[in-house]
Amino acid sequence: MIRKARPGDETDILRLVRALAEYEREPDSVVADEASLSAALFADRPLVHALVAEHDGRVVGLAVWFLSFSTWTGRHSLYLEDLFVEPEWRGSGVGRRLFERLAARAGELGCARMDWSVLDWNEPAIGFYRRMGARPLGEWTTWRLEGEALAACAGADGSAP
Amino acid sequence: MIRKARPGDETDILRLVRALAEYEREPDSVVADEASLSAALFADRPLVHALVAEHDGRVVGLAVWFLSFSTWTGRHSLYLEDLFVEPEWRGSGVGRRLFERLAARAGELGCARMDWSVLDWNEPAIGFYRRMGARPLGEWTTWRLEGEALAACAGADGSAP
Repeated sequence: MIRKARPGDETDILRLVRALAEYEREPDSVVADEASLSAALFADRPLVHALVAEHDGRVVGLAVWFLSFSTWTGRHSLYLEDLFVEPEWRGSGVGRRLFERLAARAGELGCARMDWSVLDWNEPAIGFYRRMGARPLGEWTTWRLEGEALAACAGADGSAP
Repeated sequence: MIRKARPGDETDILRLVRALAEYEREPDSVVADEASLSAALFADRPLVHALVAEHDGRVVGLAVWFLSFSTWTGRHSLYLEDLFVEPEWRGSGVGRRLFERLAARAGELGCARMDWSVLDWNEPAIGFYRRMGARPLGEWTTWRLEGEALAACAGADGSAP
């Protein structure tokens, strides 16, 4: 029921990515399409990976992850970018099974940690992750540079590549 | 003055990683050593990279980064794991030059974003990043699973790898 994503899954994956963005109240933030997801996930040496949960041939859950790195541990960590289960399958153990499979994968890869981000108001997710034994890193805030500010910084770099 | 890290830099890199951990009030959190940093940074196909700032043959600044992925953009992002400048070199533009070089690298790699995390009380860093045009993602909290809780989750995964 839980398996690695394979070429052809990008349609289902995009559907779940869009459903997650809608749940997270940012439906217009998804500019990804099937081609960009497929290119990244199914590259020769992909830097991002996906698991899907399937029931009766239908994809009902998704986990997207990549390897991050911690200079403190000197080891890679497994970063969970997205975990999503279709509304009608929540509470059925699908999310837990995806999460446990990722934890096992982290162990196989020698990772010391799994990390991810949760919206502060997403109480169901927070409850789920607490039950899994995770803890919030309350002191840390994520920062982002994008768009014109990123281009301006890049343009200010005077050195040869 | 800003260059890619190369084998042999791991001693300087570890020194700056430790100095950063001390600054972030977690001096005992660094379990990385020269071997683990060198193995990750100078692998055949490294998943983590470093830039160093050098002055008169001395490494005085460090940026460690890797490629993350956003399912919303469908593109990789450049994740800045560590940015550190030795105390006596702060305010001299070394941090800005490292940051701008990374922004340029993000552009070369087709990244839509740079992301990173900052401690809430680290006002000098917050001021620096604001001047660079970055913004905090206030709604998101980072969560972590590690140690026995990670092992327990991994052990609960009943499926074949």
